[in-house]
This record gives sequence, C-alpha cells and structure tokens, in this order.
Amino acid sequence: MTYDLVIIGSGPAGLAAAIYAARAELQFVVLEKAGVSGGQVLLTYEINNYPGFKNISGFDLATALREHAESLGSNFVSCEVNSITRERDKTYHISCDNGTEYVSKAVIACTGADHKRLGIPGEEELAGAGVSYCATCDGAFFKKKTVAVIGGGDTAFEDALYLSRLCEKVYIIHRRSLFRAAGSLVSLARRAQNIEFLTDTVPTEICETDGSVTSLKVKNVNSGAESSIDLSGVFIAIGMRPNSELFSQITECNKEGFIITSSDCSTQMPGLYAAGDVRTKDLRQIVTAVADGAVAVSSLVKYLSD
Amino acid sequence: MTYDLVIIGSGPAGLAAAIYAARAELQFVVLEKAGVSGGQVLLTYEINNYPGFKNISGFDLATALREHAESLGSNFVSCEVNSITRERDKTYHISCDNGTEYVSKAVIACTGADHKRLGIPGEEELAGAGVSYCATCDGAFFKKKTVAVIGGGDTAFEDALYLSRLCEKVYIIHRRSLFRAAGSLVSLARRAQNIEFLTDTVPTEICETDGSVTSLKVKNVNSGAESSIDLSGVFIAIGMRPNSELFSQITECNKEGFIITSSDCSTQMPGLYAAGDVRTKDLRQIVTAVADGAVAVSSLVKYLSD
Repeated sequence: MTYDLVIIGSGPAGLAAAIYAARAELQFVVLEKAGVSGGQVLLTYEINNYPGFKNISGFDLATALREHAESLGSNFVSCEVNSITRERDKTYHISCDNGTEYVSKAVIACTGADHKRLGIPGEEELAGAGVSYCATCDGAFFKKKTVAVIGGGDTAFEDALYLSRLCEKVYIIHRRSLFRAAGSLVSLARRAQNIEFLTDTVPTEICETDGSVTSLKVKNVNSGAESSIDLSGVFIAIGMRPNSELFSQITECNKEGFIITSSDCSTQMPGLYAAGDVRTKDLRQIVTAVADGAVAVSSLVKYLSD
Repeated sequence: MTYDLVIIGSGPAGLAAAIYAARAELQFVVLEKAGVSGGQVLLTYEINNYPGFKNISGFDLATALREHAESLGSNFVSCEVNSITRERDKTYHISCDNGTEYVSKAVIACTGADHKRLGIPGEEELAGAGVSYCATCDGAFFKKKTVAVIGGGDTAFEDALYLSRLCEKVYIIHRRSLFRAAGSLVSLARRAQNIEFLTDTVPTEICETDGSVTSLKVKNVNSGAESSIDLSGVFIAIGMRPNSELFSQITECNKEGFIITSSDCSTQMPGLYAAGDVRTKDLRQIVTAVADGAVAVSSLVKYLSD
C-alpha cells in the first residue's frame, strides 16, 4: 500500500504530527527507532514550561503525548530507517532495518537533535542535577546562584545573557580567546555586570556533593594552570548535532546540518516536511516542537490534495 | 516603575508568554479585558488536539493554562487598554480604562482574532453543536457525514479540501459566482469527487433537532429560490477579524489587519512582539499560539539585554 504519510521519529514533534494526522484521517505510520517515544524529553527529569502542565516529569509528558496519539488510532512501528529515496512517481520509499519498505506520498522528519557533550567526568552523572544543555528550560532552577556557560557561539552568549537576569553570577568559559558569537551578543555580555569571561580555558571535571553540582575544575590551555570555581550549575552550549543524515541526500540542510524549512515546515523537496529540533528554527522547546508537528500536517494536507 | 514587559491579552498565547516571562524572571504584567483568561478557547466545548490532553473542555484548558501562569507568579490585571504609544526613550506607554498607565520596555500583543459571523438564525445557538469556525479543530467530529463550508476565500477552500477527506460530502456555499480563493485551490476542489459547489447562494437559517444541526436553509441570490440541505455540520469560513486596532498605529499590519511578524514574533517596531491569532502565520491553533508565546519571550529577552 501507499501511505499518505510516514512520520519518522516520535519525540514531541512526531507525536503532535501523529495527533493531527489521525484527526485528518490520513493513512500514516510512525517509525521510532528507540522503541519508546519522547526523544530528548525522556532525558528531562522535571518540566515546568509545557503550558498546561505545571510540573511533570519528562517520562510522564512523553507518555501523555504518546497515549494521546494512540487514543486517536496512530500506528507506531519500532524500527530504524536505513534509507529514504524519492522516486520518479514522487513517492518516498523508506527502507527499515526490519526489512520493511514503506511507500508514502509525504514524509515528516521528526528525528530531533542531540546536544554535543563535553565528555568530562561528572557531565553524564550530574545531568539534570546541575548540568544542563538548555538555559531556557532549566535557568529558573538556578535563581540567585552562580553558574557557568561553556561555549563561545551564539547559543552560549544567548544562554549567558538569559541566565545573567536570573543568577547571581555567570561565567562564560571558552577554550579559545576569540568567540564565534555575533559581536553584538559579545558586547552585550561584556556590558552585563555579573558575567565574567574565562577564555583559553577548558572545563576538566564537574564536581558534586550529595549528588548536586558544587564546583567546576578548569584548566588554562596556555599555562596549564588548574583551578576550581564554586558554582551550582553548568550549562553546556557547545552545539547541537541534528539527526538529519537520512535527509541530507534529498533536501538542503544548513552548515550545522539542520534541515532548511519554511515557516510552514516544508523543505525544499515537495512532500518532505521537517518538524521539531531537526529543522531550522528560532527556539527549540517542547512547545515549539509540538506546534511544528501540527503545522507540518496542515501544510501537507494541502500538498496531498494536489 | 518601568516594566520589562506588558502582555496584552491572555488567551493561550498570552498565558504561554506569561509562563516563559515568569521563568525568565522578567518584571511583567498581563492585561486582560475580559476578566477571565482563555480567549476563543473559552468558546470551545471540547478540545482533542492540544497535545498531552486527550480530551478537555475549553474552560478546563484555559483554567489549566492560567493556573500554570499564576503558579509561577504572573500578575494579572483586569482592564481594557485604551491606547499604546512608543516614546522617544523607546518605552511603551499603555493607558488603560482603569486609569492606570503602564510603562514598559517591551510589549507582546496577544489580543487574538474573532471569526466573522454570518448573523443568521441558529448560528449562535448551535455553535459547538454542528456550527464551527475551524475545520482543523472540529472536522474529526464529522467523519462520514455531510457538511457545508460557507465562504469563497482560501480558508473556505482549504477547509473544504480538509473536510473532503473525512466527510461523505462537502458543499461549498458562496454568495457570489466567482471565488477569491487561489485558482489552484479552486481547481483541487473541483476535482474532488465529493465537493459540490453552490454559488450565488446565501445561507439563511441553520436548523436543528434535539440541539444538533440537521439542515441548512439557503437562498439563490439571483432567482430568490429557497431550498434546504440535509447536513450535520456547517463550517463558517468568511474571514477573521484580528484585534489589532491598538497596534495598527505603531506597526505594520497586512490588509486583513493581522500584525506583520517575523518567525521570531518580532514586529516591525523594536520591542513590540505579537503572538497567537493576531499575527501573520501559517496555522491558527491553540498549539501554535502557545508556541508563539514562548518564542516571543525568547526573542524579547535578547532585545531587553540591549
């Protein structure tokens, strides 16, 4: 059979797309390689900013979204996609590791993105207990405390400026002496009273007491001198790795690998849409991912009528 | 005092903006003229497409969003805004009918939009019981039934195409012989097997049995001939009226009156943002309104740092 739609990935974007596709009576299937839905949400201990849920665990929100999609009759298949091609008849052929090939008129890429890791001691163990990859998500847990932002790009500076409003003090720690971030952001950060710069410096270990972050060990890359900073939070902003490999052969991605999309979530390839963290967008949050899922389905319903 | 932010309106966009503004520790206030939050959501009996809530009444969702915003310390004031000006020092001065003038560095317009009404008997009484203003929201309640779409613009045709996938039969009823809708949409609708056109025709009454829509009375504007169509649903798509009057003096609106915005919800006036139905956008849904609220706050936090 030829599906109307195959949704690849079932984080918030894919689950919202499933909800909207089911309500539009599309013939569709959701492919999820992890065997469990939620994506990055599953890694989040506590979520306070998904409107309507004051306080919910990542696991519970992922479950609520999945159950919502299932209650409307969405069909989920656990498999990993090996390849996608677009054929002359404009259908997409999606080959999976379970040997199945799905044929579909439209596809939504909801494969998300991963935050790059520092790979230092303490990072993995203390994620969610003082180590964060998202200032907008977790900044509110660090009011009037001291934190560090690791990185030198736009996101690191945006995070530092955001945190400077909340926190007692913010360190920006960067391995080089120059920043990739836009000059305007760097100027704003330099003017902020409570932001301190540590350049030519790399973090070497995140330390804890009773399971919460208490300090960060750093090293000057020129002198080799080591020191320790007392703090409560470490925000790691050294980039994201979008899971766009499958799609980079059939549509345009930007230089970081995000799938280039219009505001209606369409890509440059007719019938291929992208929703959530994998696409180019202004703000990567659960609430913007679910909105993308709805927008992508609304856009492709018009495409399917053609 | 000078606020960081004044949020005008507290439908889903305004409430999500309040959630994000509170978590960013902004000094802000939400102004709501209705005295109760929720906007159009309050008019919706049953909501099945806000991800995470399988089935919730409009009132309960509005309450959940408002309580979420309040739990984070948002300050709500019941008042109607009379005027907004932007002063030479770049602050916005917002005069309210309670005599208060708020001074703020940034403003988010979350004033929403209203669907235009036909003004015929049965329309108001049967809203939510067979009369709808949103095919994407309510189409799923009319599977394998007969419905009519009233209107001749893009939205009417998009609605008809969406409904044609779900419904047994779809009438497009338009008062003129020509359509304003894009030719491509009209062609698609003409090709659909189950869409029937009634032009030069106006609806005159929506009729019910036991509180549910059962038929629509129509009249040919040329011959004056009257007839009745058996159906279960009437989708009214004759346009929206954005509540943008307050802002049209200080920023650009399009010809329908929607506030022109970029994807980051910024308007053409620095410090003024728009979120939800009042802005130019691809899809007007609760889920896209809440996403806008988050995006607008994220954008203006950068602006405030300047």
